[in-house]
Amino acid sequence: MAFQKKDLQPKIAITMGDPRGIGPEVVLKAFARLSHQRVCVPLVLGDFNILTRTAQALNLKLKVVEVAEGFRNFQPESVPVLSLSRFSGKKSPADIPFQESSRAAFAYVEKAAHLAVTGKVQAIVTAPVSKEAISRVGISFRGHTEYLAEASGTEEFVMMLAGQRLKVALVTTHLPLREVSGLVQAERICSVIEITNQGLQDYFEVNHPRIAVAGLNPHAGENGLFGEEELIISQAVRRVSQKGLFVSGPWPADTLFYRAKQGEFDAVVCMYHDQGLIPLKLLHFEDAVNITLGLPFIRTSVDHGVAYDIAGKNRANARSMQAAIQLAAQMATKKRKSQNLKTNNQNEEK
Amino acid sequence: MAFQKKDLQPKIAITMGDPRGIGPEVVLKAFARLSHQRVCVPLVLGDFNILTRTAQALNLKLKVVEVAEGFRNFQPESVPVLSLSRFSGKKSPADIPFQESSRAAFAYVEKAAHLAVTGKVQAIVTAPVSKEAISRVGISFRGHTEYLAEASGTEEFVMMLAGQRLKVALVTTHLPLREVSGLVQAERICSVIEITNQGLQDYFEVNHPRIAVAGLNPHAGENGLFGEEELIISQAVRRVSQKGLFVSGPWPADTLFYRAKQGEFDAVVCMYHDQGLIPLKLLHFEDAVNITLGLPFIRTSVDHGVAYDIAGKNRANARSMQAAIQLAAQMATKKRKSQNLKTNNQNEEK
Repeated sequence: MAFQKKDLQPKIAITMGDPRGIGPEVVLKAFARLSHQRVCVPLVLGDFNILTRTAQALNLKLKVVEVAEGFRNFQPESVPVLSLSRFSGKKSPADIPFQESSRAAFAYVEKAAHLAVTGKVQAIVTAPVSKEAISRVGISFRGHTEYLAEASGTEEFVMMLAGQRLKVALVTTHLPLREVSGLVQAERICSVIEITNQGLQDYFEVNHPRIAVAGLNPHAGENGLFGEEELIISQAVRRVSQKGLFVSGPWPADTLFYRAKQGEFDAVVCMYHDQGLIPLKLLHFEDAVNITLGLPFIRTSVDHGVAYDIAGKNRANARSMQAAIQLAAQMATKKRKSQNLKTNNQNEEK
Repeated sequence: MAFQKKDLQPKIAITMGDPRGIGPEVVLKAFARLSHQRVCVPLVLGDFNILTRTAQALNLKLKVVEVAEGFRNFQPESVPVLSLSRFSGKKSPADIPFQESSRAAFAYVEKAAHLAVTGKVQAIVTAPVSKEAISRVGISFRGHTEYLAEASGTEEFVMMLAGQRLKVALVTTHLPLREVSGLVQAERICSVIEITNQGLQDYFEVNHPRIAVAGLNPHAGENGLFGEEELIISQAVRRVSQKGLFVSGPWPADTLFYRAKQGEFDAVVCMYHDQGLIPLKLLHFEDAVNITLGLPFIRTSVDHGVAYDIAGKNRANARSMQAAIQLAAQMATKKRKSQNLKTNNQNEEK
């Protein structure tokens, strides 16, 4: 069965993020930029009044439309919103009550997870929320990624940061640096390599991904002179190589990202947050996208925070949100293509 | 007293590095590139036969000239060598006996240190040696930097890596990552900031250096959520600020190097090797120079190792050596200018 043209546009839920932050602004700016090349059938989970006011304040040629659950094709300049909160449309971000906005920010994510888990959307794109703000109103929330993993019963997942020239996947994320060494474990490294490999195949159409694994210590330990975690990393690399994956390392981290940028590798598996984020943000300061791999659905996110200090001032840069939406749409299209291919192959084999 | 023209050219000792490595090749290639714009009065400390053979093999229009100690002005295409060893000029790098070459590599550095400590040269530029090879012949040698510090009675020194767009100074260097956290100490951080500040003033003519200090943990610890070393860093930054230095931090490392690259800071003080080296090598893969600050003389170095595997194959890239010589010459000229200025000011004040 071939897909009908209208089915090819992936359905994507986009959360508005913290109403007091720059989420509403970057979502609308991204819509404005993408309106001439509608890449998906979007549904914003957020607040109708806030989005309407923000679109007016930004003087954007967009029509914010309140919709019930479900997807329809709108005019390109429309922003279909499932309104899950009712704030006053007259208040500036800083005047929105903190408790209500934190609860609302969580409600948008909760709804997005539900739509994705039940297959009503192929992808979720998230605008920033504050973990701290949501936790303070009594909701247990360690971050989008962890919440979406739990909501979908996913145990092993990977945070990947992606730009055109560099993709990094993290073995550990938000931890004190002193705890990293103890978490360099072969099981986890193998799992990150395999999920990264699968992600590159499913979503980026790289048939045989070339994955580099960074060492932990200076000069990748220089044969044990500056640390021995590289033995564990080597073991993991060997184990995964034996399954036929094109994986190499541990490589000295200081020269590795230059090599990846030059096209030698499709992705770099990094041992800790800043090892991956320093080179990623140096190359892709504005347009990096945060991807969660390993979930049963696609999830991308902006690569910045709520930025309360500039909210409502028309100063937020929407490039990361625009890239996150475009990438989610591309990933959904590629995944559908590869699944379609598999189905066709299976049918032929019968 | 104004300097005579001939005095303005700084005298620089250039060590040839390990005879079995790529040192002789990069030194000669750098001379060939710099011959039309002689920036200093150079003296190579090395092996006359090896340099003569290498210049022939590389087909370089250079004349290797054996000299006694002391500096003279030669024709631009001359390479004046104080020959401290006598290897056969017929052997390829791999055939040079290991023990003799390791001892010779050390002798070049020892002589360079002596010339610098006694004021006969203003700067030392070093080609790569192998710490391991030198140690194996029974000479206690933890690296050029440590050796030169000891030889000059220097206790506090700083490894800086410099390119046109980014300069990083390291609080810790070649250590297992797991040991870094324990060495994030206020005293040392203050000292690195102050030496960096002085170095930028003396050698780069930055009157009021703007120095950024990186945090250790992801998001600079996010207010203690992911680690507390940032409290120590803050304390050091405050202490040095009170002395009137333009220093700020601790900043989240992932976005800091982009900001530095954009011109917001003159240098970044980094807590560990890869925090500084990853962004430095991403921006300056070929032309970064390693500088030791805090010594009573100028010392620069290439930013790469002996590369035994490609020695004698005309495959080595000499851009780092060329940059190291040029930078040492610039630094010496600037230091002399600023000292001259100080002397003039003092004379006027009398």
